[in-house]
Amino acid sequence: MERILIKETGRRSGEKVKLAGWVRSIRSHGKIIFFDLRDASGVAQIVFTPKDNEELYEKAKEVRPEWVVEIEGEVKERPEGMQNQGIETGNMEIKAFVLNVFSQAKTIPFPIDTDGYEINEKNRLEHRYVDIRRPRIKRNLEARHKAIKFMRDFLVNEGFIEVETPVLTKSTPEGARDFVVPSRNYSGKFYALPQSPQQYKQLLMVAGVEKYFQVARCFRDEDPRGDRQPEFTQMDIEVAFWEQKEILDLVERLHADLIKELFPGKKIMKSPFPVLTYKEAMEKYGTDRPDIRKDKNDADELAFCFVVDFPMFEYKEGDKRWGAMHNPFTRPQTEDIEEIKNNKESVLAHQYDLVLNGQEIAGGALRSYKPDILEAVFESLGYSKEEIKKQFGHLLQSFEYGVPPHGGIGFGLDRFLAVVLNEPSIREVIAFPKTGDNKDLMMDSPSDVSKEQLKELHLKIEKNEKE
Amino acid sequence: MERILIKETGRRSGEKVKLAGWVRSIRSHGKIIFFDLRDASGVAQIVFTPKDNEELYEKAKEVRPEWVVEIEGEVKERPEGMQNQGIETGNMEIKAFVLNVFSQAKTIPFPIDTDGYEINEKNRLEHRYVDIRRPRIKRNLEARHKAIKFMRDFLVNEGFIEVETPVLTKSTPEGARDFVVPSRNYSGKFYALPQSPQQYKQLLMVAGVEKYFQVARCFRDEDPRGDRQPEFTQMDIEVAFWEQKEILDLVERLHADLIKELFPGKKIMKSPFPVLTYKEAMEKYGTDRPDIRKDKNDADELAFCFVVDFPMFEYKEGDKRWGAMHNPFTRPQTEDIEEIKNNKESVLAHQYDLVLNGQEIAGGALRSYKPDILEAVFESLGYSKEEIKKQFGHLLQSFEYGVPPHGGIGFGLDRFLAVVLNEPSIREVIAFPKTGDNKDLMMDSPSDVSKEQLKELHLKIEKNEKE
Repeated sequence: MERILIKETGRRSGEKVKLAGWVRSIRSHGKIIFFDLRDASGVAQIVFTPKDNEELYEKAKEVRPEWVVEIEGEVKERPEGMQNQGIETGNMEIKAFVLNVFSQAKTIPFPIDTDGYEINEKNRLEHRYVDIRRPRIKRNLEARHKAIKFMRDFLVNEGFIEVETPVLTKSTPEGARDFVVPSRNYSGKFYALPQSPQQYKQLLMVAGVEKYFQVARCFRDEDPRGDRQPEFTQMDIEVAFWEQKEILDLVERLHADLIKELFPGKKIMKSPFPVLTYKEAMEKYGTDRPDIRKDKNDADELAFCFVVDFPMFEYKEGDKRWGAMHNPFTRPQTEDIEEIKNNKESVLAHQYDLVLNGQEIAGGALRSYKPDILEAVFESLGYSKEEIKKQFGHLLQSFEYGVPPHGGIGFGLDRFLAVVLNEPSIREVIAFPKTGDNKDLMMDSPSDVSKEQLKELHLKIEKNEKE
Repeated sequence: MERILIKETGRRSGEKVKLAGWVRSIRSHGKIIFFDLRDASGVAQIVFTPKDNEELYEKAKEVRPEWVVEIEGEVKERPEGMQNQGIETGNMEIKAFVLNVFSQAKTIPFPIDTDGYEINEKNRLEHRYVDIRRPRIKRNLEARHKAIKFMRDFLVNEGFIEVETPVLTKSTPEGARDFVVPSRNYSGKFYALPQSPQQYKQLLMVAGVEKYFQVARCFRDEDPRGDRQPEFTQMDIEVAFWEQKEILDLVERLHADLIKELFPGKKIMKSPFPVLTYKEAMEKYGTDRPDIRKDKNDADELAFCFVVDFPMFEYKEGDKRWGAMHNPFTRPQTEDIEEIKNNKESVLAHQYDLVLNGQEIAGGALRSYKPDILEAVFESLGYSKEEIKKQFGHLLQSFEYGVPPHGGIGFGLDRFLAVVLNEPSIREVIAFPKTGDNKDLMMDSPSDVSKEQLKELHLKIEKNEKE
């Protein structure tokens, strides 16, 4: 007999079927035992009665919640009044004639039939493989899968191609610290994990891949702070020859279509998405991530807005010098070299963010591709020729072989999913998140490595004084 | 005027259009200049004549190959006899009235209108952003994108969901060396990059995600040898409650459908794919990756075959002890504990490979999930209780909460694509490959990190004696 999915039992009345799954709960009514059996597709009610098969009934009595079992039985309509209209299989029950135990289970460390917000998060993350059985987390992972699939299909349909860029790459300054990977073959040398595929996607534009995207893993070694993860997923996009307007239009259509298709219960507050300048946002809301909802408690309202016209430069009080607000490759709105050098406080950039309910969920820019503009920006920022060459040499060199005007955007998928799934933390929409302080509690990572490994990597651990 | 793609010019006769792209080549015939203009969609012939616009003609004379330009012009049918039936746009030419230069280009370091096999590979990789303009590499990246998209859609259609697993994870023994990532927050501790998502996908089975897949980045710090990369892409699959036969059937349908859809010029030698036991393969071909083609020179013949029934154990001459041929979690074909312990040389495993033209392109196994079998295997391999706990503790612990029978497979996408695209090396099907000795020549990686970075990571570099 071939196994079928539990959800199929709803239309198999009278048939003999084989099912497999986890025993969600067990009830006894007089001399009858009921299992709620759960597989990835649904839940079915299984019935054991002693008068039909005493031996089987005794076996069923031994079973405990979360055991994994296989059942053979006959699908029957439930008696009038015993039906559960709430679920797909609620009109049926399976009268068992075979019970096969695959594996037993200890009492699980916490209940999984609640939302789980009330459970200590450390406990949940240590036993994430149990926590994922919780319907809320399972729903989140499925919604994540569907949203990413939708975005991929949308972009492919628009003529984009996905290109994988390296994870073992080179240290570059992008605002946060890099994670680095020591090389065994080259003593004292390191790879860096990418903070984003920024430079590779610009190189792909030089290479003539005009419409690039990638669901890319990004890595930032930041100090534990708020709702962050050391690795996160970005929908990364770059296009050649497009204007800013075309990019924003693509981003808006993508999000509007996705919400309509996958989250029909949500309503988008305003379409087309309002566009605020950075100046307007700061003056009216005091932030460049404005929450423009009237009713901040309405979780079903999605208030998207674009923030544009960011300043090109900002004065870094700490360093007492001018820095790029985004990065030096962002294209200024002016091509007047003197203005770039002498009016740093007023130069605007072709930089844009997408904000949703007060969260920045995407950010991007058009890139500079003209040598004189890039040079003026680097000079304004006080870079020496040597620093420029060291940090951006390969990208600037590539521009010498025919660079198209280009620009792009990156969406933080974790943040977006947390908002549309009404989750308070991005950890709720990631299968195996780390804690706020970068630990994997389930795997017990980071962890020690052997002396031999360290030796092969030409490394020695130095304890800091304070430790 | 809105820009259109070059391929669209084929059906825009008489219209005024705007195009942008790279100048592939320039020819002068008497007083007429022709550009072949290339964008991601195709190539168009642009015409400049002095009698129409002297200034424009003079400007066009300055242009050199690989400059990036924008053209406005009128699409016209080419004169009889001047048509090029070989390409989509070959009946048209564009009579230019605007020429706008976005960027100039130096002479590119090598020709891109050839296959490129004759060019020094170091040169190609240093300037990969130019090399990707080569039609062969562009075709490879597009084919890669399409193949992965096809596999994703196929699996989603079969009810699978894609789940992202961490890249910053824990060191585990999987046959090769791990790349490790020092933690800044936890002095002396390291993350490891996954050799595959093996443990996470098994944990997802415990979590009740019954049909998992992921296009996963995998990392192995191996000694430079042959056609390998330190990072590679694996289509990773795991299912609960499936038999070996069901997994092989899925794998076969996936590959057969993909070839039919995306590589219709290829012919699959035999369907259903032949199934050889490990013993048969070794006896008949002397290898477990047999190339069963009659004519090894026929590049369009795809000879898929499965190799099954691998030995569970193998005697490692070097270590003078028994090891697992695949890994200790592979399910033996017998459940007889005494046989597992005492007849190691004859126990077979539920392990299987997919071989294509002599290359292993996928490998997988059913997993042990019964505690007594796992224990017998560990004992046979001579693991101490402590080692077991240290290396597999979290996975074995998860099995205590209800583990389903499960198994899976991983496809090496780079290898598969190299075979179906007739490429001699996987480097030809990867956008930004590293060299055989793990260097990124374009980015100059691995590279030095600063003293400050090392200090933050609690590390000191130790030069080996021999250096």
